[in-house]
Amino acid sequence: MTLRLCAGRAIVAAATVLSALMAGCANAPYDKSITIAEQGSFFVGGRKVQAPGNYDPTKSAAGTDEGQAFWVDQMYVQYQIPVNARKYPLILVHGGSGTGRVWETTPDGREGYQTLMLRRGYPVYIVDFPRRGRAGYPSFNGPFGMLAGTPVVPNLTGQAGAQYAWSRWRLGPKYPEVFPVQQFPMKALDQFLQHLVPTVSDNAEVISGALVSLLDKIGPAILVTHSQSGLFGWLAGARSQNVKGIVAYEPGFVFPQGQVPGAIPLFKGNQPSGTAVTAAEFTKLARLPIQVVYGDNIPKQPIPDLVADGRRAQVVTSPMFVDALNKQGGRASVLHLPDAGLFGNSHFMFSDLNNVAVADQLSLFLHAQQLDVR
Amino acid sequence: MTLRLCAGRAIVAAATVLSALMAGCANAPYDKSITIAEQGSFFVGGRKVQAPGNYDPTKSAAGTDEGQAFWVDQMYVQYQIPVNARKYPLILVHGGSGTGRVWETTPDGREGYQTLMLRRGYPVYIVDFPRRGRAGYPSFNGPFGMLAGTPVVPNLTGQAGAQYAWSRWRLGPKYPEVFPVQQFPMKALDQFLQHLVPTVSDNAEVISGALVSLLDKIGPAILVTHSQSGLFGWLAGARSQNVKGIVAYEPGFVFPQGQVPGAIPLFKGNQPSGTAVTAAEFTKLARLPIQVVYGDNIPKQPIPDLVADGRRAQVVTSPMFVDALNKQGGRASVLHLPDAGLFGNSHFMFSDLNNVAVADQLSLFLHAQQLDVR
Repeated sequence: MTLRLCAGRAIVAAATVLSALMAGCANAPYDKSITIAEQGSFFVGGRKVQAPGNYDPTKSAAGTDEGQAFWVDQMYVQYQIPVNARKYPLILVHGGSGTGRVWETTPDGREGYQTLMLRRGYPVYIVDFPRRGRAGYPSFNGPFGMLAGTPVVPNLTGQAGAQYAWSRWRLGPKYPEVFPVQQFPMKALDQFLQHLVPTVSDNAEVISGALVSLLDKIGPAILVTHSQSGLFGWLAGARSQNVKGIVAYEPGFVFPQGQVPGAIPLFKGNQPSGTAVTAAEFTKLARLPIQVVYGDNIPKQPIPDLVADGRRAQVVTSPMFVDALNKQGGRASVLHLPDAGLFGNSHFMFSDLNNVAVADQLSLFLHAQQLDVR
Repeated sequence: MTLRLCAGRAIVAAATVLSALMAGCANAPYDKSITIAEQGSFFVGGRKVQAPGNYDPTKSAAGTDEGQAFWVDQMYVQYQIPVNARKYPLILVHGGSGTGRVWETTPDGREGYQTLMLRRGYPVYIVDFPRRGRAGYPSFNGPFGMLAGTPVVPNLTGQAGAQYAWSRWRLGPKYPEVFPVQQFPMKALDQFLQHLVPTVSDNAEVISGALVSLLDKIGPAILVTHSQSGLFGWLAGARSQNVKGIVAYEPGFVFPQGQVPGAIPLFKGNQPSGTAVTAAEFTKLARLPIQVVYGDNIPKQPIPDLVADGRRAQVVTSPMFVDALNKQGGRASVLHLPDAGLFGNSHFMFSDLNNVAVADQLSLFLHAQQLDVR
């Protein structure tokens, strides 16, 4: 992990600071090896469920629920710690339809935040949150979600197809069109779609509770959330003493009870502006350095595609969230990547073609907030 | 990845050879850092399914199947390549109820094969096979397994609870008893159970097909299979030109069509001895170096616990498989770990308390077969 400067990537500001932050840059032509002090994986959170009856393996070699105990709602955590690591790890939390895979290699085979931020000296923790991916989901021996005839979760899943993904996540304005300026790695569309997994009754208390358990285990850390997991990050930040800062890519929001702004009008209907938390929780969140980040190509006026219009409604809400935090002495801000000279970013900006420059913005924020200390 | 000798671990044979093979040993008191040349993840295999109708995002912000295309049956692959790597990567394929997680950290927090074999210089590929973990499973917007009202997979899952796991995988003879000599990390039982995920209509053609696709992509490699994935390894070995050897931990078996031995009697009922492949496929498999590995505490006589008795039936079948291969000029063998001085191993020997010694047996085999060249 020798300190090296990366030439050839234009950053609009703070080039000198950046040079010092870039300990290893993915696209530069030099030895790309990484030295890791430790790596591994484990589970946190979850609970045991017990099926009624008596387990009897003399009746049949096939498993049944009868009399058995099963774990559900645990969270899977993988981690890597570089040598000479910075003090605060990054916890990367995927969003809707995703798993921790989204932080690994980009769809088109470049390094994602897993490796980029490791190169920059951060211990990196990546989760599959409860009911997704390697965390498993609550299903047993029989119909989906049923434990010995009793439902643990409803028989209902959700999944994003190519068409929903297209406008919701700004792969383009409308399937299969593209934007004039575009950073999504379109040639690797299928690899992107292959990473999507079904959603099973997401539960914000379960997921944020597992994040708090992770923070209990590893100590002070920085949360990096994406989209759906924005909410889980705010809840964990409000409830754990170990959150040192939060960077949220295109999240939803929380507000104090009784102060949730009215729903934001969409082209048709409207979208809730956020989720209520207690006044005490919101006050605790206001003590944290927080950055909300948006990409490009988000509509500025209501558009008939309601799937895409919801993102515009989030942008409308974002200054309300930041203002509410800052009125309590917070250090919250919104970064629109085009304002930093980064144009064409999709909802998955951390794996877009210019993701090294997007990561540079993360490094700058962490440095400004003194969260990059060793 | 400096070459170092590991003291304090007794190996029954070939200590001199082993010393040269142990490039980094997990339990030795020295700098444990690892230098990685490259790491990442990707998907292989799979197919697209298309729901009927027209996608219309102006009706609702919620996703539906209507008119959308989804990927199913892809395989998730994560990999790490050490500096100065050996020539042939290891592809680690999990078994029933598991995901690639099983090869990572052991339940009690020690290094698993992912890191142990990386230390020994092997590029390591770990998969979540189709319909498991990060590979996702075929479910969409609505009831499990249904695409726009048509089933893609049946509404049926399987899952191992603590009681089934106990005797099937030899955590002990019978829940919650333990064996007199035991290597399973019993203090980390919950972490072990948390790694289990539901099974969704496993399909040997889909899974082995995805392994062949992986081999097409990465070239010559060694397959390391476990239990259920034994079959998928034999099929991939019979169908890909890129399999250089197979080590199978407690697998099921294949035989040429028309030569499948009769079912093996259990305490009650019986168990099929294997799966039929074409004569040509079996002949191709016979050209490969193959080792079948068993742990300890497997019953030698039929026992009333049919879940446990099935493993004994596999041991009975194993010499038939090896003999059938070797009659065609094969280089197949069976290793019972107790015969190598390793006692008390469970079905998950590669994460048992003595997993470094179990990995030593793998290193010895690969060396003997000249599969550890650089």
